[in-house]
Amino acid sequence: MNSIVLEKVKNARKSFLKISVSSSKERNNALETLITLLKKNKAKIISANELDVTTAKKECISNSLLKRLELSEAKFNEILSIVKSISLQKEIIGKEISKTLLDTGLELTQVSVPLGVVCAIFEARPDAVVQISCLAIKTGNAVLLKGGKEAKNSNSILVELIRESLKANSLPEDAVQLLDSRKDVQELLSLSDFVDLIIPRGSNEFVKFIQQNSSIPVLGHSSGVCHEYIDEKADIDIAINICIDAKCQYPAACNAMETILVHESIANNFLLKFAKELNGKVELRCDKISFEILSKNFDVKKASETDWKTEYNDLILSVKVVKCVSEAINHINKFGSKHTDGIITENKETANNFLQKVDSSSVFWNASTRFADGYRYGKGAELGISTGKIHARGPSGMEALTTYKYLLKGQGQVVEDYAKGIKKFKHINI
Amino acid sequence: MNSIVLEKVKNARKSFLKISVSSSKERNNALETLITLLKKNKAKIISANELDVTTAKKECISNSLLKRLELSEAKFNEILSIVKSISLQKEIIGKEISKTLLDTGLELTQVSVPLGVVCAIFEARPDAVVQISCLAIKTGNAVLLKGGKEAKNSNSILVELIRESLKANSLPEDAVQLLDSRKDVQELLSLSDFVDLIIPRGSNEFVKFIQQNSSIPVLGHSSGVCHEYIDEKADIDIAINICIDAKCQYPAACNAMETILVHESIANNFLLKFAKELNGKVELRCDKISFEILSKNFDVKKASETDWKTEYNDLILSVKVVKCVSEAINHINKFGSKHTDGIITENKETANNFLQKVDSSSVFWNASTRFADGYRYGKGAELGISTGKIHARGPSGMEALTTYKYLLKGQGQVVEDYAKGIKKFKHINI
Repeated sequence: MNSIVLEKVKNARKSFLKISVSSSKERNNALETLITLLKKNKAKIISANELDVTTAKKECISNSLLKRLELSEAKFNEILSIVKSISLQKEIIGKEISKTLLDTGLELTQVSVPLGVVCAIFEARPDAVVQISCLAIKTGNAVLLKGGKEAKNSNSILVELIRESLKANSLPEDAVQLLDSRKDVQELLSLSDFVDLIIPRGSNEFVKFIQQNSSIPVLGHSSGVCHEYIDEKADIDIAINICIDAKCQYPAACNAMETILVHESIANNFLLKFAKELNGKVELRCDKISFEILSKNFDVKKASETDWKTEYNDLILSVKVVKCVSEAINHINKFGSKHTDGIITENKETANNFLQKVDSSSVFWNASTRFADGYRYGKGAELGISTGKIHARGPSGMEALTTYKYLLKGQGQVVEDYAKGIKKFKHINI
Repeated sequence: MNSIVLEKVKNARKSFLKISVSSSKERNNALETLITLLKKNKAKIISANELDVTTAKKECISNSLLKRLELSEAKFNEILSIVKSISLQKEIIGKEISKTLLDTGLELTQVSVPLGVVCAIFEARPDAVVQISCLAIKTGNAVLLKGGKEAKNSNSILVELIRESLKANSLPEDAVQLLDSRKDVQELLSLSDFVDLIIPRGSNEFVKFIQQNSSIPVLGHSSGVCHEYIDEKADIDIAINICIDAKCQYPAACNAMETILVHESIANNFLLKFAKELNGKVELRCDKISFEILSKNFDVKKASETDWKTEYNDLILSVKVVKCVSEAINHINKFGSKHTDGIITENKETANNFLQKVDSSSVFWNASTRFADGYRYGKGAELGISTGKIHARGPSGMEALTTYKYLLKGQGQVVEDYAKGIKKFKHINI
């Protein structure tokens, strides 16, 4: 065991025990201090980021990665407004969730409390460091951060300022710490006594690796195979508009559409118009019927069985014609990843049937799958999107960093009296 | 892979997709049918249980296990009343948790839904089969059951009747299935695509084994090291009464007290009275100061470092004298298992400090730790007690078998319009 990682994790646990009982005001003050410090150190931050960008360019990283890494004037201001918006969010810690009078003078209260020590692993976006740290501070948690190595210098100065903000408000600075490498993360996987949640935002393989190599709970998604089903009662223009958005607006996103399912009675009409609209921009991998419809006029491929399970993250789309909404639902529940799936229809009954029966974290009616996102859902900031069903499901924000505990206030009661029947429980919700 | 286990698990998933969209009335009817069937088949059930008891006696199982196994007249009636009480619980599926207007005509609803496929492993108590199955049916889930092998015949007939009740109400009978052996459970651990939650109620080692050998989430507790802290402002009589209950009322329970922490200013007075009251019934393992106090008049042992982490499940208690409430809190947060810990004091401020700072799922003031239990908490029936912080924490009932999903209803909206700034989100809670 690398003693440095163990020490960081133990310090995180100690810091959690302190920050978790700090006041709402102290935590919000730390966020306000951070805004001041970010403004004051803007030049330093930008130049650290320029160093990262220069190194990254030398290493020929992809344009999209470079775009995420770069801290433009606009992105810097966006960071400031994210910190502000998190500080303005209403307090969710210390809330009474339920209250039961077990018996006279024996009162049980369930209250929301911070979760604990969280480890977040994310891409080379310096803004993610600030966003995740601020969500953790706001909710009284401790966080260990492992950002993309390309953002090393940017992350380093940002975390320094975050820790300074904590210290300036008498909060434990080790509530926010940086991990140095993926090796550190690997070592942390066995420390289930100290770490309560891992939030990996890397590749699908990386998320799966973590799920399979740690008994620490994981919040994340290992894949996003999202569908749109075009019902026989779909408005064709709406359907085309939504499907173009779901596939093309940002194909690398986990909430982009990977498979389109089309009702047989509308298939000919819809598919020809849709393919014409796509104009060759998207590679179509078709089942037998859709291939028959499209191959006369367009250059399309045949889908294989593995296509139905594949997250392309690219301008590729699998296409299947189905006989009815039930076939579409069954296909999604069999091949989907429980992420986000939609139906396009003008028929309310069919829509409700679909909304109820599709077993995914987000199910949409007449809207693009791309809406599945913490910011778009109004959560202020997003920690990650969970395809698990436990704890947090779907796009997750602050609430995913909380749990609850039961407080029982008595006057000396013992169980023996109830076991013997001398006393009886009242169990009244109060 | 044992194809029988895989088939059972796949059938459970299929049955889940059906029962999860059944009506509240259908599920409650199945519970009512079960009551009728149990009454009708009482003789058969009792004789199956007698067979189990006879076999168990031949194999010389412990008296306490025998007591759990035996289905007396009283216990049979208790089963009937548990089924009735579960059927009468208010519906928790399909509830609106939150609703947000993202934009005009774009409405996001978060609704509670059944969790999925659950695997429960439990002790040789036939009543547990009925309780867990009924909680699963009530909440629209599918369950795979592995009960103690000693209850084989009892479990078999009970599950048969439960499945008959499902079938009689057009619900999928494979929503409740029996697993045959622990080997089946072991094979199931890798089927994370089909199983959403494991609830192990076996030994600590067994729970740990499951946590470490599966990426399926686990609801359970691997240990229960519970404390009572006797503050300087404790009422001595209350403290003694509670500690006797917490240690002796049922020492094998996970919520029994294992360590007592005593404030130094009250230590002499309290410990001598407490030891006198125990009258040699409990082995005391003492730290230096408490040993000095007690060893003159009583036969006590010295505690070693491992005692502070040990769940005795027996009439043994470790004893430590502390300087202040903070030392007690630190000791509990360091050595405890986040299960249940209490303070005995008449000082409200000290109590609140303790209630806030102890990082356990249940924290008590002037009450025995033995109250930490689903039935005593008024949950009707208990699935298990969770020491994890994710999803369900503490004594868990029906609510631990639910999750939620997001439903988005639109009119053809696409993300591109918001990305370009043509449209703006409203994000109004409605």
